[in-house]
Amino acid sequence: MERQNDDIGRLLDDAETHFLAHISLDCVVFGWHANELKILLLKMKNLDRLALPGGFVMHEETLEEAAIRTLRERTGLENIFLQQFQVFSDPLRSDPENRAKDLEKMGINRKRAAWFGQRFISVGFYSLVDFSKVDPRPDMFSDACSWYNLGDRGTMVLDHDHILQTALAVLRTQLNHQPIGYNLLPRKFTLPELQKLYETILDRKLDRRNFQRKVFSYGILRSLDEKRTGVAHKAPYLYSFDLRQYQKALKLGLQGGW
Amino acid sequence: MERQNDDIGRLLDDAETHFLAHISLDCVVFGWHANELKILLLKMKNLDRLALPGGFVMHEETLEEAAIRTLRERTGLENIFLQQFQVFSDPLRSDPENRAKDLEKMGINRKRAAWFGQRFISVGFYSLVDFSKVDPRPDMFSDACSWYNLGDRGTMVLDHDHILQTALAVLRTQLNHQPIGYNLLPRKFTLPELQKLYETILDRKLDRRNFQRKVFSYGILRSLDEKRTGVAHKAPYLYSFDLRQYQKALKLGLQGGW
Repeated sequence: MERQNDDIGRLLDDAETHFLAHISLDCVVFGWHANELKILLLKMKNLDRLALPGGFVMHEETLEEAAIRTLRERTGLENIFLQQFQVFSDPLRSDPENRAKDLEKMGINRKRAAWFGQRFISVGFYSLVDFSKVDPRPDMFSDACSWYNLGDRGTMVLDHDHILQTALAVLRTQLNHQPIGYNLLPRKFTLPELQKLYETILDRKLDRRNFQRKVFSYGILRSLDEKRTGVAHKAPYLYSFDLRQYQKALKLGLQGGW
Repeated sequence: MERQNDDIGRLLDDAETHFLAHISLDCVVFGWHANELKILLLKMKNLDRLALPGGFVMHEETLEEAAIRTLRERTGLENIFLQQFQVFSDPLRSDPENRAKDLEKMGINRKRAAWFGQRFISVGFYSLVDFSKVDPRPDMFSDACSWYNLGDRGTMVLDHDHILQTALAVLRTQLNHQPIGYNLLPRKFTLPELQKLYETILDRKLDRRNFQRKVFSYGILRSLDEKRTGVAHKAPYLYSFDLRQYQKALKLGLQGGW
């Protein structure tokens, strides 16, 4: 990783040659663990603030390639589900004066600070990952990269809190059109776990019987004839997604909402 | 309008000073007329190809402000419904050699051609307008600005056909979350007109009775106690949207699909 950060450092010393000016990307990485929605965040060096994993676009790259490269560096994952969801272009999303102070505190040299100080229009991606497979790694500007609960994250740099809130709102509207459950849950899960995921994203309680009736009517689940072990009483059955049926149902949009 | 184009011409002669490099925007403008979905396109000068209305972002503007400015110039409209829907960033979306030839054919001077020839990452917006209120106006690089039917538009420049197709696909997934009917239909409409609009966007036939049952169950229509005049027999009733109920229903997403 040190090696990788050295490489990126060299590129940033001569940023204009390698990256497109004015365009950045920020990734909201969602994971699901212990019945809670988690977000992957960086603790910035010498700042008491958090940041979304982000990066710049090389001259020969698409935005998606740049996002995949960024997420590979932060998570160790090769295949990752990601979706552009909005572009953030407020000229005031970064206040030049405060930004310059922050960059100095973080010990970023003048050459790099000039690059970081320009106006960036940032493309937001959200990403859904299997929590258990992620190996979080900080970048060269952060001390740590780790999972946070939605409810107890700290203050964030720039407009990153707004980007995160927007990603959540978009996730909500895309629940019937994107394989969100498939990407967030482990391969085997119980119906209460699936319902909790939907309730968390929709931010409201769902009626258990209605939920189960609907999810079965979509024909997207495969019953595994296997039970969750190590549970106190009445062990719940395990299910997995029938990916082919799921993709087919999502194409039309799950008709019937939740 | 000549005056306005002169102004833009001057800005483009010194483009780097006024606009952000590498970032453009393209607008897919949808209208609804005579039971057909229409798109507003430009016929490029000396090229047998069409283009989406587009533009660049000034240093002090947000992307949305740049899109509103662009659409005001092309349509004469002040208040316009628009939504970012995707960013197009393929480095090959413009082939430099062919692009240079096209710019020459269009009679664009060297200074401006250098600007137009760079790599642009383009942010796609879709816009929904009241067809009857639009006064289409070409820009300085086009002979005409006019409405086309989805089915019989001609060849388009760059990746504009792909951008248009993507906008349509997104419109489909957002039908239950955006006030699409409200923005496209005239204030008063009949149920068959509303159904035709939904069928066109969803690209499939809907059952009349099911459609009406659902649309009434959402409580978003106001019955006007007025009939469409000038129709052969059995004049249909007119409706309008109950905007407050519509917005409220969209917030949750119209539960139940179509």
